[in-house]
Amino acid sequence: MEVQGNAVNTLLGGIEAGGTKFNCAIAANPNDVWERASFPTTTPEETLGQVIEFFQAGAQRHGPIATLGVASFGPVDLNPQSSQYGFITNTPKNGWSNTNLAGQLQGALSIPLAFDTDVNGAALGEHLCGAAVGVKNFVYVTIGTGIGAGVMVDSKLVNGAMHPEIGHMLMPQDRRRDPYPGHCPFHGNCLEGLACGPAIEDRWGLHGQSMDSDHPAWDLQAEYLATMCINLTSCYSPERIILGGGVMEQTHLFPRIRHKFLDLAGGYFPQVSQGNIRSFIVPPKLAGRSGEVGSLRMAQALCSSF
Amino acid sequence: MEVQGNAVNTLLGGIEAGGTKFNCAIAANPNDVWERASFPTTTPEETLGQVIEFFQAGAQRHGPIATLGVASFGPVDLNPQSSQYGFITNTPKNGWSNTNLAGQLQGALSIPLAFDTDVNGAALGEHLCGAAVGVKNFVYVTIGTGIGAGVMVDSKLVNGAMHPEIGHMLMPQDRRRDPYPGHCPFHGNCLEGLACGPAIEDRWGLHGQSMDSDHPAWDLQAEYLATMCINLTSCYSPERIILGGGVMEQTHLFPRIRHKFLDLAGGYFPQVSQGNIRSFIVPPKLAGRSGEVGSLRMAQALCSSF
Repeated sequence: MEVQGNAVNTLLGGIEAGGTKFNCAIAANPNDVWERASFPTTTPEETLGQVIEFFQAGAQRHGPIATLGVASFGPVDLNPQSSQYGFITNTPKNGWSNTNLAGQLQGALSIPLAFDTDVNGAALGEHLCGAAVGVKNFVYVTIGTGIGAGVMVDSKLVNGAMHPEIGHMLMPQDRRRDPYPGHCPFHGNCLEGLACGPAIEDRWGLHGQSMDSDHPAWDLQAEYLATMCINLTSCYSPERIILGGGVMEQTHLFPRIRHKFLDLAGGYFPQVSQGNIRSFIVPPKLAGRSGEVGSLRMAQALCSSF
Repeated sequence: MEVQGNAVNTLLGGIEAGGTKFNCAIAANPNDVWERASFPTTTPEETLGQVIEFFQAGAQRHGPIATLGVASFGPVDLNPQSSQYGFITNTPKNGWSNTNLAGQLQGALSIPLAFDTDVNGAALGEHLCGAAVGVKNFVYVTIGTGIGAGVMVDSKLVNGAMHPEIGHMLMPQDRRRDPYPGHCPFHGNCLEGLACGPAIEDRWGLHGQSMDSDHPAWDLQAEYLATMCINLTSCYSPERIILGGGVMEQTHLFPRIRHKFLDLAGGYFPQVSQGNIRSFIVPPKLAGRSGEVGSLRMAQALCSSF
C-alpha cells in the first residue's frame, strides 16, 4: 500500500449553506467524508455559532482543516472587488439580509475560504462525479423555494457582473389557461413567480406532494419548465440541462418536460433530438449530496492553488 | 522614430460575411486599414470568387497576408471537432446552406484562418475600441433581418455546444394587444418572430423606415426588446448590453427600451438603476465598422498565437 506523504494531513471543510439548513462536512477529499453535521437555518448568530463550533471541535479531533468551501443560498455578492464580497445581500430570508457570511466564518476559524452560490456548488459537484462528468457546457437548475442556476461554459462556472438569476426571466403565460398572477414579489409572473414550489402550492391551494401525478398542475408545470429549458438552450447552447430541487422529486415531470421541449423547439436546435433528449434534460446524480461534494471541491481547488 | 522590424510585413485580412454583403479589408492592424472592398452576397461561387480575387490582388500589391479573420452570418458550425467546422449550416439564405466557407477560403488563399459568427466579430470589435472597452461582461445584440448575440464573459466570447441563438427565446406576448402570430418559421412568436425587422414590416404592412417615431409599432417593439434585455440580464448578469443592427437605427427606441426595462425589472437587478441605465443599454460605437474591426482583431489574435 502506498502512503501519500502530506495528503493524510490535508483536511477540507465544506458548507452547503441553505435557507433551511446548513450542511457541514469535514473530509479528506469530496468522496471521503469523515464527519458531517446539519444545523437548521434560524438566526445568523445561532446557526453560524453551531457551524463554527462544529469545525473547531472537528479540528481538535482530526487535526487542522486546510481550507473551507462555502456554497451559499443568496443572493450573494461574488465580486472580490466589492466591500460586500462574501455577503448574503437582500434575501427575503428573515434576519439574513446583509450577513457577512464569508467574513464571519473566516474571522472565527482563520481558515482560507472559497465562496460561491449554492447552485454553483451543486453544479461543481455534478461536474466532478455526478450527471455532468465530462460535460463541458451545462446548466444545473434547482426548482424549489426559488429557481436558480449554476452555469458551466467550457468547464468553468459563469458569473457575470453578479450571479446569473435565471429565475427572473420573463415567460409566455396563457392567462386563459392559467390566470394565476404569479408569486414573485418583484415581477409577479416571471419564471420563478410561475413555477417555483410555493407558486404551485399557492395556485392550486395544495402542496405539490399531495397532488396525484395526473393533476393538471403537472402539465402546466412541465410546460413552464420546458419553456425555461428552451430559453436556457437559446442563451447558453448547453450539452446538458440538469434539473434538481424539491419540485423535481416529482420524477414524472421529466418525460413531460422532454416531450414539451421537443414540441416547443420545432426542430431548431440541432444538438437536441428525439434520439438524445433523455440525456439532454436529466436529474442530478448526486441528489442530496451535490452541494456537499461541490463545497468540498471548492475547498480542494483552493488548497491546490497554494 | 522607432521602426518595428517585422511588424511592417505583417498584414491582416478581415472578412465580415453578411447575408447582404461581404465586407473585406486588408490592414496592418484593426485601426490601420489599407484597402477595403464590398461584394453583394449572391451565390457562394460568385461572392467567394470576388472575395478570393480581392485578397489575391491585395497580396500582390502589399505583400503576403499573414492571417485571415472571418466573422460570418449563420448559423455556422464552430466546433473544431466537427466535420462541418467552418460551414454555414442550415441557413434560410438561398443557396448558402452547407457552404464550407472557411474551407473554401483557406483552400484558395492558403492563409491560416480564424472563424467565428458575425455577432461575435462585432462584439470583439466593440470590446477592442467601441462601446465595451474595459467591460468584461457584456452582450452585443443585433436586431435586423434576424436577432443574434455575441456574449462576452470575463473578456472571453462564449460559445456553448454551438453558438447561443438568443433570437429564439420564448417571450410573453399579450395577444389582445398584439395578435400577430410571429414571423419565425420554427417557433412563430419567439423573440425573433416578434421583433426582427421583417416581423415589424409584416405586422404593420409598412417598412420601419417609413413609420413615424410616434407610430404604435415602436412602443411595442421597445417592450419586446426591453423584455429581451431582462432575460439577457437574468441569464448573463452583464455590465452592459449593446443594441445594434438595422432596427436600432431608430434611435428613439433607446430611451423607450431603457424606461421599459426599469419598469419590468421591478428594482430586482442591483447593478442597473435609473442612475446608470443610460450606460447599461447603449448603441454600438463603431456602427458599421464593428464587424471589420472584429474580423481583423481575430486575424491579429491568430497571428500572435504563432
